[in-house]
Amino acid sequence: MTSQKSDTAMSPKITGELLRQLRQAMKNCKFFSEPIQAYIVPSGDAHQSEYIAPCDCRREFICGFNGSAGTAIVTEQHAAMWTDGRYFLQASQQMDNNWTLMKMGLKQTPSQEDWLISILPENSKVGVDPWIIAADQWKNMSRALTSAGHSLVAVQDNLIDAVWMDRPERPSTQLRTLGLEYTGISWQDKITALRAKMTKRKLTWFVATALDEIAWLFNLRGADIEYNPVFFAYAIVGMNTIRLFVDLKRLSDPALREHLQLDSPSKPELSIRTFPYESVYTELQAICAAHSPKDRVWICDKASCALTQVIPKANRSPTPYTPLCLAKAVKNAAEIRGMKVAHIKDAVALCELFAWLEKEIPNGAVTEISAADMAEELRSQQKDFVGLSFPTISSVGPNGAIIHYRPLPETNRTLSMNEVYLIDSGAQYVDGTTDVTRTMHFGTPSAFEKECFTYVLKGHIAVSAAVFPNGTKGHLLDSFARAALWESGLDYLHGTGHGVGCFLNVHEGPCGISYKTFADEPLEAGMIVSDEPGYYEDGSFGIRIENVVLVVPAKTKYNYRNRGSLTFEPLTLVPIQVKMMSIELLTQKERDWVNDYNRTCRDVIGAEMERQGRKEGLEWLIRETQPIV
Amino acid sequence: MTSQKSDTAMSPKITGELLRQLRQAMKNCKFFSEPIQAYIVPSGDAHQSEYIAPCDCRREFICGFNGSAGTAIVTEQHAAMWTDGRYFLQASQQMDNNWTLMKMGLKQTPSQEDWLISILPENSKVGVDPWIIAADQWKNMSRALTSAGHSLVAVQDNLIDAVWMDRPERPSTQLRTLGLEYTGISWQDKITALRAKMTKRKLTWFVATALDEIAWLFNLRGADIEYNPVFFAYAIVGMNTIRLFVDLKRLSDPALREHLQLDSPSKPELSIRTFPYESVYTELQAICAAHSPKDRVWICDKASCALTQVIPKANRSPTPYTPLCLAKAVKNAAEIRGMKVAHIKDAVALCELFAWLEKEIPNGAVTEISAADMAEELRSQQKDFVGLSFPTISSVGPNGAIIHYRPLPETNRTLSMNEVYLIDSGAQYVDGTTDVTRTMHFGTPSAFEKECFTYVLKGHIAVSAAVFPNGTKGHLLDSFARAALWESGLDYLHGTGHGVGCFLNVHEGPCGISYKTFADEPLEAGMIVSDEPGYYEDGSFGIRIENVVLVVPAKTKYNYRNRGSLTFEPLTLVPIQVKMMSIELLTQKERDWVNDYNRTCRDVIGAEMERQGRKEGLEWLIRETQPIV
Repeated sequence: MTSQKSDTAMSPKITGELLRQLRQAMKNCKFFSEPIQAYIVPSGDAHQSEYIAPCDCRREFICGFNGSAGTAIVTEQHAAMWTDGRYFLQASQQMDNNWTLMKMGLKQTPSQEDWLISILPENSKVGVDPWIIAADQWKNMSRALTSAGHSLVAVQDNLIDAVWMDRPERPSTQLRTLGLEYTGISWQDKITALRAKMTKRKLTWFVATALDEIAWLFNLRGADIEYNPVFFAYAIVGMNTIRLFVDLKRLSDPALREHLQLDSPSKPELSIRTFPYESVYTELQAICAAHSPKDRVWICDKASCALTQVIPKANRSPTPYTPLCLAKAVKNAAEIRGMKVAHIKDAVALCELFAWLEKEIPNGAVTEISAADMAEELRSQQKDFVGLSFPTISSVGPNGAIIHYRPLPETNRTLSMNEVYLIDSGAQYVDGTTDVTRTMHFGTPSAFEKECFTYVLKGHIAVSAAVFPNGTKGHLLDSFARAALWESGLDYLHGTGHGVGCFLNVHEGPCGISYKTFADEPLEAGMIVSDEPGYYEDGSFGIRIENVVLVVPAKTKYNYRNRGSLTFEPLTLVPIQVKMMSIELLTQKERDWVNDYNRTCRDVIGAEMERQGRKEGLEWLIRETQPIV
Repeated sequence: MTSQKSDTAMSPKITGELLRQLRQAMKNCKFFSEPIQAYIVPSGDAHQSEYIAPCDCRREFICGFNGSAGTAIVTEQHAAMWTDGRYFLQASQQMDNNWTLMKMGLKQTPSQEDWLISILPENSKVGVDPWIIAADQWKNMSRALTSAGHSLVAVQDNLIDAVWMDRPERPSTQLRTLGLEYTGISWQDKITALRAKMTKRKLTWFVATALDEIAWLFNLRGADIEYNPVFFAYAIVGMNTIRLFVDLKRLSDPALREHLQLDSPSKPELSIRTFPYESVYTELQAICAAHSPKDRVWICDKASCALTQVIPKANRSPTPYTPLCLAKAVKNAAEIRGMKVAHIKDAVALCELFAWLEKEIPNGAVTEISAADMAEELRSQQKDFVGLSFPTISSVGPNGAIIHYRPLPETNRTLSMNEVYLIDSGAQYVDGTTDVTRTMHFGTPSAFEKECFTYVLKGHIAVSAAVFPNGTKGHLLDSFARAALWESGLDYLHGTGHGVGCFLNVHEGPCGISYKTFADEPLEAGMIVSDEPGYYEDGSFGIRIENVVLVVPAKTKYNYRNRGSLTFEPLTLVPIQVKMMSIELLTQKERDWVNDYNRTCRDVIGAEMERQGRKEGLEWLIRETQPIV
């Protein structure tokens, strides 16, 4: 699944008064020494999170549009908001006529830079909160404005916050410690491994800003952001020191203090000094002021401009991926074990759901929303369930063709025996994160629906069964997923796969399978990605088949230059519906793959269903896993 | 085929005295206002040509190493030369012990920048001829040196030339005009199309520096560089003016003057003003001095630093590919017709060669060199033959595993009935350029040789028969060529294909099929690329199957979003040896492809051989194109 955020509010937000207040703040020298002529409101938070907490929904607050991607810019005269094709309709419905919708990707739409340059008076100042713009984005925007005689300026106090009276508090949920049985490696060993990488690269400091990396590093989880078990924090790791910046009130729990060894560190270099979340800036400043001019600081080039610019340029060592991101991507034995357990539980819930749907759909009382609710209810019955890993995409017929669809009361369709049903859903369990898409028909699919499903299935199998050398980057596998569709003149306009965290974010870098990326890191045994080709017939139906797969070593006949080979092992074990397949389009190898896969689902999930006494689901599972002949 | 240059000279060049003279020149303020502490000698010419003329072989002159890739750097104390794995052996044999061989790609080998920084005294000046370093390379080197307190300086007089007593003259071969029957578009129309693109991008000047682009633009060919029918020139095109910089002695031929309308231009804006080759610098300077500060100049970012820096930075509009490069890549109907004719003639020569080899090899008197000579002789018998398009790779047994092998007297092996023979060769004809690789066995291949050949063939077919949407970049097809090899744990470490010129360079941008590139331009109908997967078993044999293929529209069952689809049509029509195939490893589709392909060879090439009365070749062709059952 790929990300989206939307809500039931589809009437435009009235923004006239808010804009008046914001424009006043832009002129108020309390915030910046001179008036500013434009103010940029990006959609992210200070950690460049994909999903954000309510207190960080500043772009939504100012313009009303609540999709996952969009940037608002307010000038003295204008207010404009840029978003992409997924959100044109939604944004036009949610914004009032104070706002101009800038449709990204259309030729006539100016870039933010070009638009600003075209309307600003000479020598203008464009303000932005340096905490919520990434260092690389700042650089590009600043360069463009400067070349046209303007300047980009950092406004330390956020001007949206200044006019946002009932802004929610920053969440500070309870922290959960994860033991070695889940994490496989203690946080102490992770710190030691990080320091070894720092030594190798001659770097003396590492600044962690991504929330999932900090959660992973300390073997902690939170619930500050919906769907993402993370918590607001920063960390700065030196060769002998560890600084953790977090709301200090969260650290009172004795078990947590014991986990972090806050009161009795085993070794001085593994002693964690805790600081308030907000003090990361001054503390990093102090570190930079005190350290030798040769000290170099490792920071991701996607970190906030504010934090990046604290470090003198000569001392910065920005990289596209941090060592934590790379280490986190390669799951260890305990994490893999956990992910497997989580996927078995998740499959039980989904098989139960499908059995229930099969029974209930003929009564005409199941809707996209009630099906999604039932999926959540069934998942929540499984052990160590924490929550969903993203909003469920439950879509029937034409709604299935909207790739980032999420059912809303006004779009909610009833499931029927005449339309294709696509459900893309997943959950967080303490032992792992799931993400699975199945496309089903509960009546008789049309020949065209079956044909398209079969091409998508061929693509799914081509990736899942691919054997490739160690060192291969995921983007080189993307075409395997498309070859069968391409041959018939079909395609889908999203990537084929993304990295998946272990009881962490359902989307994570640095690996994936997408023609859009190039700078992805090579696939390695232990990495976990999704395999999710699709086909979308606008106004009619959507098809996607998604498994989460584990990169594993492959046994091959030869071993060229001793490089070794890799392949994928499906972690997701939910049967793929045979009814949707045009068997005659499958090769023998592909039929064997389907039979092997569905038999594994029956064996593994069947045993668990039996253990859980889930008879109806088990019957459904056995029926659905009959081999193709 | 991919490029290489090597020679018979394998004893080291004695360079002590030369280095002494060069170091003196480095200190001589006649060349630069202050002494310089290091001098960089890149391997290219002022046009960043892949193949270079003898007068430009400066790196070879100073160090003795004559491979196609390598950079020499001389300091007061040291002399070092960087080259890649293809050339480690050759370079070590050709350089004396004044030189340190820097093996690129090995972990312990420092980059040129790091090495310089590690050995230079503080505040050093590093010199380079700004004409033979590309603007983007200058930028990187300059940045690295500056950050370490040194500086990169442009030394206008080339210091190698200053000590090279018997340096050859720059070639000035006769120019050949190409009529519309070959080019399809007059140079006047090409200029008009170029100006339309300039208008669209709001650019007022275009500077052409790549030799093949200039040859293409003016529908002229030369013979200044071996294998490449180009001539030394520059061109500057304005909205109303055309400046051509070329040795003026070449312009006396009346037919040429008529072709270029030098004496009676049809329209003033199509009047070509000619200037001496060397005056491009001063003329571009004059243009930049005269033009309005808003005028922008289009120049490739691979153009020389010298020419690029003439243009004030604010007026430069550098692009990775020029509009000529893009226009040249898409062949028109006349060019495609010519390429087809050239490939038919070329196939006749190769079929004759193989018939001859089959007869002569049992006598034990054919060597790699004599086979290559015979191939050239047979090609030269074909109409409008001009020369080879690259040095023939004629290799037997273990020599075949050396990807850039070129037979030399000391490596020359005799062809036998016990070893695999690989020949990668091509020619320039007035109507087109060819490049074909066939791998043959004249006795009985081993099971392993056949197995590998069959995987390579499967990859070749997978690319050749691929159907893909308009807008697809070639690098996304590269994995198709490898899937069969990968499945058995095998691979090859070169790209799968490169663009091919039409009676121009056998390697051209901006398209290709390679996992190594990302910034390639999408494939379009009319583009021509090679399809050449391989497998190399070190010390034993090499396999490569290469066709030149034309991108053509594909008919598909559906047409998603009206994007249209593409596929490839082989232009090369030389049978693929059935004896080398493990038929049981081929799918029915692949067998059909082989039978279709070989039958087309028989039909098309057979007809031409009959017309030319080449009986022996025809008999061979008919025998070799029997269908697989």
